[in-house]
Amino acid sequence: MTQAKQMSLGMNILGFGSHSGAWRQGEAGLNAYIDVDYYRNIARICERGCLDAIFLADGPALPPDVASQPGGRLEPTLLLTAVAAATEHIGVIATCSSTYNEPFNLARRIASLDHISGGRAAWNVVTNAGDAAAQNFGLSGAPLHVDRYGRAEEFVEVTLKLWDSWEDDAIIGDRATGRFADPSKVHTVDFKGEHFQVKGPLNLPRSPQGRPVLVQAGSSEGGKALGSRYADAIFTTQTTLPDGLAFYREMKQRAKAWGRDPRHLKIMPGLSTVIGSTEAEAHARFDQLNAWHGEHGLLQQVAGRIGIDARELDPDAPLPWTQIGAVADFERGSHGFLEAQLNLARRENLTIRELSRRILVGHRLAVGTPEQVADTLAEWFLAGAGDGFNIMPDMFPSGAQVFVEEVVPLLQKRGLFRREYQGRTLRDHLGLPKAVNQYTQASSAELSAGLSPSPSVIY
Amino acid sequence: MTQAKQMSLGMNILGFGSHSGAWRQGEAGLNAYIDVDYYRNIARICERGCLDAIFLADGPALPPDVASQPGGRLEPTLLLTAVAAATEHIGVIATCSSTYNEPFNLARRIASLDHISGGRAAWNVVTNAGDAAAQNFGLSGAPLHVDRYGRAEEFVEVTLKLWDSWEDDAIIGDRATGRFADPSKVHTVDFKGEHFQVKGPLNLPRSPQGRPVLVQAGSSEGGKALGSRYADAIFTTQTTLPDGLAFYREMKQRAKAWGRDPRHLKIMPGLSTVIGSTEAEAHARFDQLNAWHGEHGLLQQVAGRIGIDARELDPDAPLPWTQIGAVADFERGSHGFLEAQLNLARRENLTIRELSRRILVGHRLAVGTPEQVADTLAEWFLAGAGDGFNIMPDMFPSGAQVFVEEVVPLLQKRGLFRREYQGRTLRDHLGLPKAVNQYTQASSAELSAGLSPSPSVIY
Repeated sequence: MTQAKQMSLGMNILGFGSHSGAWRQGEAGLNAYIDVDYYRNIARICERGCLDAIFLADGPALPPDVASQPGGRLEPTLLLTAVAAATEHIGVIATCSSTYNEPFNLARRIASLDHISGGRAAWNVVTNAGDAAAQNFGLSGAPLHVDRYGRAEEFVEVTLKLWDSWEDDAIIGDRATGRFADPSKVHTVDFKGEHFQVKGPLNLPRSPQGRPVLVQAGSSEGGKALGSRYADAIFTTQTTLPDGLAFYREMKQRAKAWGRDPRHLKIMPGLSTVIGSTEAEAHARFDQLNAWHGEHGLLQQVAGRIGIDARELDPDAPLPWTQIGAVADFERGSHGFLEAQLNLARRENLTIRELSRRILVGHRLAVGTPEQVADTLAEWFLAGAGDGFNIMPDMFPSGAQVFVEEVVPLLQKRGLFRREYQGRTLRDHLGLPKAVNQYTQASSAELSAGLSPSPSVIY
Repeated sequence: MTQAKQMSLGMNILGFGSHSGAWRQGEAGLNAYIDVDYYRNIARICERGCLDAIFLADGPALPPDVASQPGGRLEPTLLLTAVAAATEHIGVIATCSSTYNEPFNLARRIASLDHISGGRAAWNVVTNAGDAAAQNFGLSGAPLHVDRYGRAEEFVEVTLKLWDSWEDDAIIGDRATGRFADPSKVHTVDFKGEHFQVKGPLNLPRSPQGRPVLVQAGSSEGGKALGSRYADAIFTTQTTLPDGLAFYREMKQRAKAWGRDPRHLKIMPGLSTVIGSTEAEAHARFDQLNAWHGEHGLLQQVAGRIGIDARELDPDAPLPWTQIGAVADFERGSHGFLEAQLNLARRENLTIRELSRRILVGHRLAVGTPEQVADTLAEWFLAGAGDGFNIMPDMFPSGAQVFVEEVVPLLQKRGLFRREYQGRTLRDHLGLPKAVNQYTQASSAELSAGLSPSPSVIY
């Protein structure tokens, strides 16, 4: 039986939800965002819908708006360890900084998560724009974009070597002779780069996935270069279909240029959702959340992104395009969200107030019925703008619940999404091939046939 | 009702056990040491015995003997997160390096573990002697002892500030007005030291224990200074009662000199155990494990510690004392284990072969019946050589099981150990006072009475 191509779905659990008014609605208790049970519950809901993974964003600094927004997060690799212990199939994607970690430590934590979860771990590589994070690590401000990405590339390279430093069959375990491992199959990595020198091997045998899934989420030139070369999946902010199509084509092309099979790079745009049984219900839910956040809060979401004080902006005018060019700090800043927001406003000629209703945390937004949400996912998927989507509900847990109970069945009915898990690992869910160990010698049969092991997953 | 003073008990889960022959016995599967279920099972056994905590040693490098010994470990903060999710009361103590971590990241991970476990987390501060770890972090060799401890002290200072950076009542959570937190109760820490500059605040509200438990495990001068000043508990290697008594007195004295209540510094020597229903059974178990490890392996445990090739040693002669003084690298090495081993050999005038039967991983060893093990724990406790003990069974899970089922009831019968947990947090189990936040202003009542908040826990 041939199986039509199906999409992947990730659930982005962003505190109380991707709408900043969510905490005030009171659906979850005030401490929910730092309560492991809250996340376990959402993960179980997502697992009932056979979603590929849950995703946790992160950054090593407290945002400045703690007076009005829930601030602080449990560290993702720990939180996802607890979530993995409460689930069986769903993948767990932890965002961790390549700028403010050491490769040995992080490679080990992600590999540990892969062991503990039985092969469901992923690392989302981020470089962390913003001075607040830098100031928690002895710097006065964030390193330049180019330096962050230079470090990120080396970091990923070291990490891949460490993950492979034990061959799959390195453990002999012969109790009679006392041979535990074959040292010739446990490799130092001897990495010497500009940013890192790491001897290795990792102090942990190779994990169930061999190579935990690598996710990349930056849409700058540096981000695209890194992601197309190394990542298994790209989370991206695309607010219009033409932009989504162009990004998809570009990334697949870039993957091919690195010698990769482009099918093994999954493109997953984000979609924020506000879902109601009817359009009216959805809009009522949205209006209520908007009211909680307030007009100033909504406008501030736009103002903050473009870096101009909200008081200087006329909410009913278009974006001040000339000013934006001068202010936006592309050297230090986070490119993707700003670009996507500007693209949307430009293509649809939106006022600032209109734009403030079209974005939540910066991603594309769908306000409507389950059918409408399923339609837009299907449209983008079938048009070729995404291999899957990172879903960012307005508010938890109801936003995850309605997605799983109302939208997922529609996608399943159209044959666009699985009805049950087909494998045990996140690589299985995403349709990624087994990751060949870069240190494993080609078998003699392969050598005599002149073959090298799966070139598509050796970089 | 007055409660007689009771001891604390921690369980040190060291792979297959503290006897290097344990993996060959085959009691646990070959992958057990990297299988979260193995640790969950042991933790549940310990929790049935109402033990204070389980303890995980760690270091960020693969030991060189992977050919003959199980190598590699799951990262402790993640593994203990999974263990905490499977237990309700028992504390979880993670060893993490102050030399190869950043304070912001580690403070956050331990605080996250404290949140996730509901107040059961501890950090065991180690500085990591040894070049292998250093070479995984861009250094050619380990920093000097004095530099490692200088960094450790700053690291702890920053960590304590970050853990306190949110006051306990910082979250207002007023949905009607939209005030989430009171920013005047969320403090930057603005630490500027020789090793670290950290702005803060931590991106996580204060954790259930307020201050997760701090454990310190080095017995060098640097270790003792650090531990007596900051630690809540000291894990120490003491192989003879006179040395144990002297260390206990010294550390209590040092704590007092820092202005602390010495009762709030718990001294916990390690005890390796090999337990049988009869003495003969215990020795048979020990002989069998020794046979698995082999004569060479046993002698190598002594040789490796003193830094002299086993082939150069006469196993039936005393330790080569003059040579040892010249070889032992006190500038870089780990002091405690070597000293304790030398003390034991000197006081009892042991040959190398005899010494090799008196130590496992370097701690004091008891081979005998449950009564004998209970006796020696009671003797040291009542003599004043320990507030509690870190138990290191020869082999898991049987070594933990027999300790909990046979030794603990004897201690309970003598009134020396709890019959049930009296509190929910590790601080409760250890009898530590609530940790006052260093940023919290004394209340006006306290101010007018001329009191400052609990001086014993403000350093």
